[in-house]
Amino acid sequence: MAFYYRNTEESSLNDLLLQDCTVLQAHDDQVDFLSHRDILVHEGKIEALEPTGEISPGQCKELVEARGQLAMPGFINCHAHVPMVIFRGLAEDVNLEDWFNEYMWPLESNLQPEDVYWGMLLGLAEMIEAGVTSVADHYFHMDRAAQAVAEAGTRAALGWAVFGSGGLDGLEATARFAERYQGAANGRITTWLAPHAPYTCDQTFLKETAGWAERLGLGVHIHAAETAEQTQVSLEKHGKTPIQQLEAAGILDHPCIVAHACGATDDDIRILAKHGTGVAHAPKTYLKLAMGTAPILAMRQAGVPVGLASDGAVSNNTLDLFESMRLMAMTQKQQTKSAESMNLGQTLTIATRESATVYGLGDELGHLAPGRDADLILVNTDGLHMQPPHNLAANLVYSARASDVDSVMVAGRWLMRARKLLTLNKAEIVEQVGQSMRRLAQRVPQKRIQLYQP
Amino acid sequence: MAFYYRNTEESSLNDLLLQDCTVLQAHDDQVDFLSHRDILVHEGKIEALEPTGEISPGQCKELVEARGQLAMPGFINCHAHVPMVIFRGLAEDVNLEDWFNEYMWPLESNLQPEDVYWGMLLGLAEMIEAGVTSVADHYFHMDRAAQAVAEAGTRAALGWAVFGSGGLDGLEATARFAERYQGAANGRITTWLAPHAPYTCDQTFLKETAGWAERLGLGVHIHAAETAEQTQVSLEKHGKTPIQQLEAAGILDHPCIVAHACGATDDDIRILAKHGTGVAHAPKTYLKLAMGTAPILAMRQAGVPVGLASDGAVSNNTLDLFESMRLMAMTQKQQTKSAESMNLGQTLTIATRESATVYGLGDELGHLAPGRDADLILVNTDGLHMQPPHNLAANLVYSARASDVDSVMVAGRWLMRARKLLTLNKAEIVEQVGQSMRRLAQRVPQKRIQLYQP
Repeated sequence: MAFYYRNTEESSLNDLLLQDCTVLQAHDDQVDFLSHRDILVHEGKIEALEPTGEISPGQCKELVEARGQLAMPGFINCHAHVPMVIFRGLAEDVNLEDWFNEYMWPLESNLQPEDVYWGMLLGLAEMIEAGVTSVADHYFHMDRAAQAVAEAGTRAALGWAVFGSGGLDGLEATARFAERYQGAANGRITTWLAPHAPYTCDQTFLKETAGWAERLGLGVHIHAAETAEQTQVSLEKHGKTPIQQLEAAGILDHPCIVAHACGATDDDIRILAKHGTGVAHAPKTYLKLAMGTAPILAMRQAGVPVGLASDGAVSNNTLDLFESMRLMAMTQKQQTKSAESMNLGQTLTIATRESATVYGLGDELGHLAPGRDADLILVNTDGLHMQPPHNLAANLVYSARASDVDSVMVAGRWLMRARKLLTLNKAEIVEQVGQSMRRLAQRVPQKRIQLYQP
Repeated sequence: MAFYYRNTEESSLNDLLLQDCTVLQAHDDQVDFLSHRDILVHEGKIEALEPTGEISPGQCKELVEARGQLAMPGFINCHAHVPMVIFRGLAEDVNLEDWFNEYMWPLESNLQPEDVYWGMLLGLAEMIEAGVTSVADHYFHMDRAAQAVAEAGTRAALGWAVFGSGGLDGLEATARFAERYQGAANGRITTWLAPHAPYTCDQTFLKETAGWAERLGLGVHIHAAETAEQTQVSLEKHGKTPIQQLEAAGILDHPCIVAHACGATDDDIRILAKHGTGVAHAPKTYLKLAMGTAPILAMRQAGVPVGLASDGAVSNNTLDLFESMRLMAMTQKQQTKSAESMNLGQTLTIATRESATVYGLGDELGHLAPGRDADLILVNTDGLHMQPPHNLAANLVYSARASDVDSVMVAGRWLMRARKLLTLNKAEIVEQVGQSMRRLAQRVPQKRIQLYQP
């Protein structure tokens, strides 16, 4: 594979021509592979996508020969807690209540802003290696997360997580973060309000959140109806499902990412559809924590957009959306008892354009076409596990691995080439995270940031 | 990592000393990681396993520095149809009946012995890259599969698949294959009888199979109770479950691998336990074909050994047992609605020693200890997706990927070092399989090797 720079700095030149790749395009639950295509990238955008040879390479600073490689939109992770990678492996084989009360929330009382910075860098590096170019992240100390995103060169939709117990001042502080960081890192950072969940944020708090959304023109990223049990308890306590609570508080009048919704009822699905609310789907977490799964086929049929997600690495263990994509398809087949469900076209549409919609940038990301942002990955398709190439879509969904990602570009800039990270120092990140391991793993009885009691 | 040969050919020397690795040992549903260990390999066996420094390197022809790497038994694939990789991707999003009748069995009418040879090589190469050192394979033209195994250097337990419709002569021919190839490839090949399933082989045929097993001292590798529906239909037609049919025919009086058993009843589990019959478990196939899953926790509690399996690549898409291991654990949690089910110790015990038991070599494989066969893999644990190393067992089960396998040894011989295959020519295999793609993908209406009608 040739890879060279021309000796010119003229800014009027186009930036880069990717030559002779196969381009994945998914739309309306169909998937196409356009072979022998060139992609012209200029000032962070896709300027042209044409059959190989039709774009003159004379105008480009960089020519990249990508013959035999698959070009596809970078994966968009619609719900994560990226810095939680620092706790990876610390809460295994435990039920959901213990996961929160005995592990995760005690562990998070160890968090320092510095941990979020290094954890974010570790998670972003892991995601770049796996072809994930954007992440909707929901965590703490998000100014430090934003710093990491700026350095890594990825995109991120950041929300500073807040509990009702932190009071309305806490909410205001996170709203001010969102206001301040909207459009940071040359526009690669967008921001969302991030109340934790209806069971940790009461109606007053949620209404205040909707008020901030209104005043600042922000969306809301929130967990809701994580399990059927949460829905049941919510009905008993409040006479409303968690989704109905969000609607009643006015949250759904704004752009909204609802994480999980495994406990969504038919009425909830109608509500989500009515408001155009997106649902982030993290199937590995649901399997590992025995949560059932979300009725995403019914949601999509009702018009609810669904996006892929990893959730945090303490439940999901990786931030790998190849894995999420595959598990989404397979668990839907199992759930509906039909191997014909969630076919390749549906799966790849969700993994690309629909995830972009949920992420809030449906017109900019998730599809390789002129005018869109140049966030793309090159995937090697010549691995033995993808041979012979009878069916590229099937190979991508059911055989490909994160390690097949060769190169990653965000906004026209390479973040990885030939599996070498170009913006981040892996050894330094691993060393820094390793130094905090012992401190981070401590759990003090009764010391936790919150109590899970839906 | 140092890697060199000493200039000596004295056969009295020990062969190889693996220095300073971490050794995984699983037993009784517990897992230990022994750090800083040296492993001495001599004439295909593990001669010693001691703390680093306690074995003198002076006696060894080859010293291998493995600091920071995890040494574990090579994965044992307890049920596959390896050459089916040549059809990978040709039967997607279809229900089980169509999978058999409209895809797999029509496609297999295209099979030539040469296809089995090249398909076996492709699948073995894929498995070596994924750390799989042994495979119980159930397919056709198995003399050509045996040739591929001999060349690849792996272990295999080969059974020539046969249907009742092929008559008793067909059965005899496959029994003669088993007799002829038992112990081939310096003992790396073992052989089994391989009737397809109770729904394609009637009681007379199964009894004859048991007769051959008795006369030749062979075990039987067979599909049974693949789904709950098959069990139901069998009860209606024959008054017996598929497992009861196997017992009645005398099959279970011999060593036996039952593939799948998703439709096993409580009584079936008692029968399997009574006979010490092993069950091969291929969870990705069950998800993809919406088959439910097997009650392997109940089976193990009753004393039935369970082994990991990939099944064929037309349902499983890969031959990757990292994936099977992870899916086994997660689908059991989901099935039992308990995140505490199928914990890391259980999962890794199944993936190592218990798979060896099902494979028929419980005393030789699946555990790194003196006197056992030197079938081992070195896994890199420094990938970002496995950082920080709070919990190596969790990282192995939930984060590791086939691409983390660095080196693979079978019977003391390296088959892969630093991800380079040493016995097989990847380019040639890919080219040969690629040349047959078009011919293999043809389907002629009504032309199939068998009809699925359980």
